[in-house]
Amino acid sequence: MRVAGLISGTSVDGIDVAVVDIDDKIQVVATKTVPYPTDVRDAILSVSDAANIARLNFLLGELFAEALQHTGVPLETVELIGSHGQTIFHEGQPVEFLGRKIASTMQIGEAAVIAARTGIETIADFRPSDMAAGGNGAPLVPFLDYQLFKHPERARVALNIGGIANITVIPANSRAEDVIAFDTGPGNMVMDALAPPYDGDGEGARAGRVHEVLLTKLLDDPYYHRPPPKSCGREQYGAEFIRTTGIDLATATELTVRTIASSIARYPETADVIVSGGGAHNRYMMERLRAALRPRITTSAEFGIDVDAKEAILFAVLAYQTYHRRPGNIPSATGARKPAILGKVSHI
Amino acid sequence: MRVAGLISGTSVDGIDVAVVDIDDKIQVVATKTVPYPTDVRDAILSVSDAANIARLNFLLGELFAEALQHTGVPLETVELIGSHGQTIFHEGQPVEFLGRKIASTMQIGEAAVIAARTGIETIADFRPSDMAAGGNGAPLVPFLDYQLFKHPERARVALNIGGIANITVIPANSRAEDVIAFDTGPGNMVMDALAPPYDGDGEGARAGRVHEVLLTKLLDDPYYHRPPPKSCGREQYGAEFIRTTGIDLATATELTVRTIASSIARYPETADVIVSGGGAHNRYMMERLRAALRPRITTSAEFGIDVDAKEAILFAVLAYQTYHRRPGNIPSATGARKPAILGKVSHI
Repeated sequence: MRVAGLISGTSVDGIDVAVVDIDDKIQVVATKTVPYPTDVRDAILSVSDAANIARLNFLLGELFAEALQHTGVPLETVELIGSHGQTIFHEGQPVEFLGRKIASTMQIGEAAVIAARTGIETIADFRPSDMAAGGNGAPLVPFLDYQLFKHPERARVALNIGGIANITVIPANSRAEDVIAFDTGPGNMVMDALAPPYDGDGEGARAGRVHEVLLTKLLDDPYYHRPPPKSCGREQYGAEFIRTTGIDLATATELTVRTIASSIARYPETADVIVSGGGAHNRYMMERLRAALRPRITTSAEFGIDVDAKEAILFAVLAYQTYHRRPGNIPSATGARKPAILGKVSHI
Repeated sequence: MRVAGLISGTSVDGIDVAVVDIDDKIQVVATKTVPYPTDVRDAILSVSDAANIARLNFLLGELFAEALQHTGVPLETVELIGSHGQTIFHEGQPVEFLGRKIASTMQIGEAAVIAARTGIETIADFRPSDMAAGGNGAPLVPFLDYQLFKHPERARVALNIGGIANITVIPANSRAEDVIAFDTGPGNMVMDALAPPYDGDGEGARAGRVHEVLLTKLLDDPYYHRPPPKSCGREQYGAEFIRTTGIDLATATELTVRTIASSIARYPETADVIVSGGGAHNRYMMERLRAALRPRITTSAEFGIDVDAKEAILFAVLAYQTYHRRPGNIPSATGARKPAILGKVSHI
């Protein structure tokens, strides 16, 4: 077997490469040292906070392993773990960095620790493989939506209302590559910020009054009128948004409802809208969605999927795909050039 | 197949767990949300410099993939890559962190990028699995030393003179678990700092004069008299060491030679000392080692191993082990409780 080895040592001089043929003995085919560009070396040597991130990575590995044990499911019955980890940075679109265009992401929660503590093969770090194929590393949930909700005759939309709301559009009798997915706009995050901890059942919004002039102005945002693919960041609907618009709870709820409804209206053949995420608990918002949308509205619970657990289920399913050496991204959703096997496998 | 999925979302509330049974369909067995302790949540939200580290991680992935191509070996002949990456933090011994004892390490150089650019399955992140098994995550090189140099009748010592010098003691006719490995003390790093870029062939040291009083005092350091396992950090022989001792080039060379010689003298049955690392190029130091040591002295080049390429070769060999689901650490060297399959596999 011909195997290449790569390392840069603690002196941070450059990359040592060796190519060897391995059978009973080790035969060196080629060696090479490639110095780092000076600006790269300087950037590596000036990294800060690596200690804190490294320690958190190992600590979260312990906590993730313990969280699995809190389910009460006997570990010896679990054959595989898929762990997304905790995102501490995500930049799906490339930026200029030391003379190159670099997109990047970072999730922590050390998979080697999860595997060692549970004794179960663990797959983690799902987003980088999609990004290495030119994708945004997100959204990944359309893969699960497609598996769960595809139907030979009914066109469906999976709607997840988390901090941001997003939809996966699954045409009737479609292939995975026909799926469209994008962020519709705010989900719960403006409401959560206005009514902490959060206006769970929406009664606060029901008691309020929609500020129609403000709402009309907000709906003018070109984002809502642009065709997909598109995604919006959490920063778009943060404290700055609340301060500059002076938005109230009832108007925030209506903004979420109207931007979801107009996004789904782009797909008039839709027969079912299947809701998940924290927003599915908001009775008032669900009523408003039913009033604003023509298709049948239900929740993922009808399909046996707890509305709060869809993302955790997703990473179990993506791990299953990787275990079988099958792709887990949907290029039409992430923008990747091609399907990719996602994640990294820690064997036991 | 029963698979668990784990995620903590961008709201950093806690860990969502789902356990599902997957065959033709997806059956949810259990779900649970485990909130983060407040101090952990605060620590995650206060991480800094993650953007810089994430971007460097992806950039180094590109550079590592390109470095392999610089060897001129046709990529289509390479079946597997083992990449150590660039260490930006290593703390092999646990420290108190948010109420737990945590050992940690961090290597960057995104393996998903290396795999995507080369089209070759890539294994990376070798140290965490040893640490998850209670080891220091280092040294890993004894595994290669044992494979290369074990002998039915001759006891051998592999001596690597990098910034720090370390030895792997391989008794005649030994098993892997009989191997002993430890840092002997400074290698080239004091010399390098005194004669930048470095006193490659040792002529500067040869022309100088050893300060015997200082040398005797330095050799009194209890570290050199302590039995293994033991390891010393780069910080021990840095600018502070040079400033407080006033050490010169000839004395620094002799300190390296004498601490190596006394370490090897602990193993009087040693028949061969096999040198690798940058120090093997230092003619004067090699002469001094020959004078100070009884065993035959040679370099790894006699075994077909370029003295500068041993670590890169190591990670090719460790990847080969992992590919075959075999352990790659030597617990007696790293302090791990047991052998572990090292690294994480990025499939293509």
